[in-house]
Amino acid sequence: MSLDAVLAQIDADLPAATERLCELLRIPSISTDPAFAGDCETAADWLVADLADMGFDASKRRTPGHPMVIAHADGPGPHVMFYGHYDVQPVDPLDLWDRDPFDPAIEETPNGKVIRARGASDDKGQLMTFVEACRAWKAVHGTLPARISLFFEGEEESGSPSLVPFMKENAEELTSDIALICDTGLFESRTPAIVTMLRGLLGEEITVTGPSKDLHSGMYGGLAMNPARALARAIAALHDDQGRITVPGFYDDVPELDPAIADQWQALNFDAGRFLGDVGLSIPAGEAGRTPLEMIWSRPTCEVNGMWSGYTGDGFKTVLPSQAHAKISFRLVGQQDPHKLRESFRAYFTSLLPEDCKVEFRPHGASPAGQMSITDPAFEKARGALSDEWPDAAAYVGCGGSIPIAGYFKNILGVDAMLIGFGKDDDQIHSPNEKYDLESFHKGIRSWARVLDALSR
Amino acid sequence: MSLDAVLAQIDADLPAATERLCELLRIPSISTDPAFAGDCETAADWLVADLADMGFDASKRRTPGHPMVIAHADGPGPHVMFYGHYDVQPVDPLDLWDRDPFDPAIEETPNGKVIRARGASDDKGQLMTFVEACRAWKAVHGTLPARISLFFEGEEESGSPSLVPFMKENAEELTSDIALICDTGLFESRTPAIVTMLRGLLGEEITVTGPSKDLHSGMYGGLAMNPARALARAIAALHDDQGRITVPGFYDDVPELDPAIADQWQALNFDAGRFLGDVGLSIPAGEAGRTPLEMIWSRPTCEVNGMWSGYTGDGFKTVLPSQAHAKISFRLVGQQDPHKLRESFRAYFTSLLPEDCKVEFRPHGASPAGQMSITDPAFEKARGALSDEWPDAAAYVGCGGSIPIAGYFKNILGVDAMLIGFGKDDDQIHSPNEKYDLESFHKGIRSWARVLDALSR
Repeated sequence: MSLDAVLAQIDADLPAATERLCELLRIPSISTDPAFAGDCETAADWLVADLADMGFDASKRRTPGHPMVIAHADGPGPHVMFYGHYDVQPVDPLDLWDRDPFDPAIEETPNGKVIRARGASDDKGQLMTFVEACRAWKAVHGTLPARISLFFEGEEESGSPSLVPFMKENAEELTSDIALICDTGLFESRTPAIVTMLRGLLGEEITVTGPSKDLHSGMYGGLAMNPARALARAIAALHDDQGRITVPGFYDDVPELDPAIADQWQALNFDAGRFLGDVGLSIPAGEAGRTPLEMIWSRPTCEVNGMWSGYTGDGFKTVLPSQAHAKISFRLVGQQDPHKLRESFRAYFTSLLPEDCKVEFRPHGASPAGQMSITDPAFEKARGALSDEWPDAAAYVGCGGSIPIAGYFKNILGVDAMLIGFGKDDDQIHSPNEKYDLESFHKGIRSWARVLDALSR
Repeated sequence: MSLDAVLAQIDADLPAATERLCELLRIPSISTDPAFAGDCETAADWLVADLADMGFDASKRRTPGHPMVIAHADGPGPHVMFYGHYDVQPVDPLDLWDRDPFDPAIEETPNGKVIRARGASDDKGQLMTFVEACRAWKAVHGTLPARISLFFEGEEESGSPSLVPFMKENAEELTSDIALICDTGLFESRTPAIVTMLRGLLGEEITVTGPSKDLHSGMYGGLAMNPARALARAIAALHDDQGRITVPGFYDDVPELDPAIADQWQALNFDAGRFLGDVGLSIPAGEAGRTPLEMIWSRPTCEVNGMWSGYTGDGFKTVLPSQAHAKISFRLVGQQDPHKLRESFRAYFTSLLPEDCKVEFRPHGASPAGQMSITDPAFEKARGALSDEWPDAAAYVGCGGSIPIAGYFKNILGVDAMLIGFGKDDDQIHSPNEKYDLESFHKGIRSWARVLDALSR
């Protein structure tokens, strides 16, 4: 089946595809606000109708929250599952929007045309890139190049409470050869990316107790142990002078980066100066001898997310506090086991405190890193397809944060996921004036047409 | 003039003296609450009348707040100024009191009789010990053994806003050979004390800024500098492994303890185990090689009074904070100059932070240590007099906190002050069920009679 004809069809149909996206964008499917529950239903119905129209076996599935949309269509190739979400973020503060967030418009900007609306980039525009690619295949060839399933969630922006139960209950139906997730971005405007490494997370809340009550720092200062000072000393000791984390055994299950991946990252010419400069910094602060991309993608971290003790209001109080608290999280990579590390962290942190302290730990989350099996030929096929569409070659990249859905595909269904998306850093997702570049939409549709073609070979 | 007759008069007059104290205690002179302004006036009037009755030239002096009471009486000896305060703390929470705080009563307790009422110990009972000593001298001899002035403040529990201006405006009238301040306690129930060393205070509020806004710790963690971690490292570096403060030049003006004072402190057999045990601790946490009393009285300290950064609410937020804050104070001793140390602290703390940080400092208070000239023979005279009254010898002690009035006598009037008081640790000042031991009151009066006798020789 000819890919070129499909790409030509996509180009010709772009105005109509854009209008279809705008229809979907007009539905204010804000999932977190119960006032918009009916709109979430409407968005799900719109998708079911559109997919059914194309020949998918599409249905709306009830959950305790907003419905899922599931659709299947047969095809000759492997079974490909595509995930996206039709719900959007709230729009407040509304007065910071330059237009009605649910009245989408194509705007000219110095960087080209954009589709301006809530959800344009996150995630309705991205979701529709795949739908439109399917439509073009169907229009040109009457069939799809692979067996395709679609899985659209309506609660991604409100914590996905129904997602895991739904995936477990429908595991057989949802299991495929490979999963595609379109909720990420380009590496930069010329360079597409496939996220294959996601850092895990281990969170701990720590309470150090010194004196049994707050003391007067004049009466007791110098003699009584100060838990704020003890906490500061222990936190300071969590990194050595090279920026390495000192928890015993911490690096045991941290792999060195595959040289092929390292080469790809090198080729990305990541501008760390600009990345840091945008947030008022200039000096990479991670492990000595690591590149900036390693620091955020492939190396584990230990961060203080919160810290408090004693008097924090206006003015001054000469209190010697009874307690000091911290929220600390580790980003995990490779095979690091969050549960094992929680135990070694607790034992080590306790050993860093004065004997006279009491310490309590509260767990907050423990998820291992996600590492896709890029030896599966599907990954190289997709990477080649993306490289054909965009000016620069696609790269396997990491993602410093966690994207839970990727882990669920792996852990619940045993399916590797490719995270491919066409968003840009300036899309203002979760903020006023969200937009999606018309180029992201257009080349996104073409990218999926190419990926489906490649996967079917 | 015979001291013995005065002491006998004090013993005989104790019931009447106690009733006079109870009269004063019935006046709810809470200075911080405007609803009790009239009661503050009444207490001042009561004191003026009582002193005038005894032959003092007594008057109430207007201030922008509550009035001062000033009284003078001639005598043959040196000019002695006595300071106390007639205002009291608020009484809430009232439901924790076992009786009306302003309906004083003599209660039997396992440790002897106590006078139970708000202000019994802080400071009406203490103030009246001196007044009753004067009354007994007058009753027995018709005159006083020295030229005596009394200075009673009505705003000590509400920040003393009128005190410094009043002392400056009336400097000539208030200047004496020595000042006596009765607002402190016994070292322990058998051992009286004269406070001759008061630590100074230097407060600093620090704001460390890393990124220009809060960041996602997944996206930036490992690459972007975390100001909470930077702050913790700098705080940790403020002490070395021996508990010494590392600010350059910090110990330049810290004197070694006079061997005679060290001997007195040794003889006090301070029970650091119990002192710390009462607040849930067991190990002295100060400088290695220093005794516990040195740690709280004669050595400088650096304490974290407050510290905060990032997310401090319930649950967890994977934020890499933009800012981290601390409130840090130093207790100063000897000739340490707070202004000089502020500058060296700021330079040093800045040097402990990563290059990529911004840091701002806000000053909070700067007062030097107070060190009385105990070579003045008045001190040894008073110490001997106290030792004659109590089972154990009196000691020159330090005070970890600051007592501003002592500094004002020194700095505004050039007068050394002896801080002598008879309160006990369990007097529950500033708390419900405040009391003053009847023994403190009785032996307190006798102590002042002896001190006046000694000073007049």
